[in-house]
Amino acid sequence: MSGRILLKQGGGGRAMRRLIEDIFIRDFAAMPFDGIGPAAMDDGACIPFGNEWLVITTDSHVVHPIFFPGGDIGRISISGTVNDLAMMGATRILGLTCGVILEEGFPIEDLEMIQRSMVATCKEAGAVVITGDTKVMGRGEVDGIVINTTGIGLTKRPIRDNGLRAGDKIIVTGTIGDHGLAVMSIRHSLGLESDLSSDVAPLNDLIATVLEAAPDAITAMKDPTRGGLASALHEMAAKSNTGIVLEERRVPMTEAVRAAGEVLGIDPLHVANEGKAVMGVREEDAGRVLEIIRAHSRGRDAAIIGTVTSERTGSIILDTGFGRRLLAEPDGEPLPRIC
Amino acid sequence: MSGRILLKQGGGGRAMRRLIEDIFIRDFAAMPFDGIGPAAMDDGACIPFGNEWLVITTDSHVVHPIFFPGGDIGRISISGTVNDLAMMGATRILGLTCGVILEEGFPIEDLEMIQRSMVATCKEAGAVVITGDTKVMGRGEVDGIVINTTGIGLTKRPIRDNGLRAGDKIIVTGTIGDHGLAVMSIRHSLGLESDLSSDVAPLNDLIATVLEAAPDAITAMKDPTRGGLASALHEMAAKSNTGIVLEERRVPMTEAVRAAGEVLGIDPLHVANEGKAVMGVREEDAGRVLEIIRAHSRGRDAAIIGTVTSERTGSIILDTGFGRRLLAEPDGEPLPRIC
Repeated sequence: MSGRILLKQGGGGRAMRRLIEDIFIRDFAAMPFDGIGPAAMDDGACIPFGNEWLVITTDSHVVHPIFFPGGDIGRISISGTVNDLAMMGATRILGLTCGVILEEGFPIEDLEMIQRSMVATCKEAGAVVITGDTKVMGRGEVDGIVINTTGIGLTKRPIRDNGLRAGDKIIVTGTIGDHGLAVMSIRHSLGLESDLSSDVAPLNDLIATVLEAAPDAITAMKDPTRGGLASALHEMAAKSNTGIVLEERRVPMTEAVRAAGEVLGIDPLHVANEGKAVMGVREEDAGRVLEIIRAHSRGRDAAIIGTVTSERTGSIILDTGFGRRLLAEPDGEPLPRIC
Repeated sequence: MSGRILLKQGGGGRAMRRLIEDIFIRDFAAMPFDGIGPAAMDDGACIPFGNEWLVITTDSHVVHPIFFPGGDIGRISISGTVNDLAMMGATRILGLTCGVILEEGFPIEDLEMIQRSMVATCKEAGAVVITGDTKVMGRGEVDGIVINTTGIGLTKRPIRDNGLRAGDKIIVTGTIGDHGLAVMSIRHSLGLESDLSSDVAPLNDLIATVLEAAPDAITAMKDPTRGGLASALHEMAAKSNTGIVLEERRVPMTEAVRAAGEVLGIDPLHVANEGKAVMGVREEDAGRVLEIIRAHSRGRDAAIIGTVTSERTGSIILDTGFGRRLLAEPDGEPLPRIC
């Protein structure tokens, strides 16, 4: 490859996937590793360990602004990593690491607020930051603060994003678009902040509840972060070699998100969520799993939003209620630094 | 705390330690965790796992310039994390994670060079990057590229940095000051680059060789990165509740480093190393361990440089050959972004 890095190559969509495949994955995927590794491009890696699997996942958080309606960079840095572990089935968290890069002159009061938020989110998730790293860059060399969080957890059965089978139902655990539109709204000073709030939250307790009651029901799972539900479904369909029929009118969405999406000209299906999971569930278990999710405080708005098909593999067929069309795969997140 | 972040608070010395203690550690150290966790402020955390220990460590790499004599940000990001694992005794690496943050417009050719360097260093260390994350920030929002690397490994016996006992010998595995002065020299355009070269390298094979031949000989270990040998020794002495007599004339140092230190007015004892370990070794094993280290390609210049004492706890007594004085603890690294 040649040329220069584009903003959209960090956007969680097709452009980013190509960059990662072209630059990073090839060499590492060719190196000896006994487990689910880089070639899988899943939410994390899995290492067989006795009769269990060790799961490890990493995320750098560059969200701007660092304080936004419903959350902040501290809450997102803990939730994002806890959720990536949970998406692989690892709801028991052994520990988190936290690498903070600060800009010279960053207000220590803000740092303390972020730290308090990280601690509160850790308590909510039953997780602990067990080691860390601190770097300071000069003024103008980094914008305020960025945080890397890496997590390790354990699971008896890794849940992949490529396990969909025809007939599975697609469940989303709640409303879509809240995080992306809350951050966009405050960045564009739309004045909609009072109605919009990020959904950023740790999901491991919700997922643990499902896995305990129905250990084998989930066939594939992902958290629809950058690139939104559209990107997550495309990835799951392509990797599973299936299609998905998505029933648009069943996708849960708040009125505020719908309105903000219209004002900004952005489809809420394409923007980041930070407290939602989307999963394929065996048809015979779907009703029961939906009930379990809805009974949990983080899953009250859950819904069955689609069905996996053996046709049109790699595609998402959007059933609008009036007709059907293909849902395009996002090239990336509409706005950079959404998480 | 109030005020604003200072550059020296990222410098690996006293200023950084205070920031970490005041902001980050208190809350996390109070949370339930069964292992060697944040309160230890060691090179990583350890989790008891069957009859072994899982070790986890994280580092963000912000070195400037990203290509320097003897290495680059790719080599440092792999070596730094491999070495932190090795310093805790974890020479078997289960996997590394890599979180890259890029500036919009970053040359893809440079990214490919960095990636090749990471791959080569991984092969040298017998390690694999098993999962990662890519973010892109806008122009002027981050300076080029920063890389976080987190590693997990296994050890039968965690080696702490607080285990020194009076009588132990202090061994350093090679020349001191090479990395710090190579980077400073090119930043200041001193024209000394041809003589100076960073020592950045993975040390896990060297440490594994020592641990295999003498499993219980090492009482404490650290890699003298930011803040250099002076900072590492201060930390080990303070945590071990011992003093250390450091014999200045025995500290291995190249002529080029000595000369560059004089030109810049910087003590090579205070600058970062990226391919060296400093360890306390039981007196009766010191000669044998030194021989083992010197027989390894990464340890040819190793030397016994001091002795642990029960007097002047927390202090480093510098024996210059003409007299003795206290070696001050560095407040931080002389230059920011050294690693």
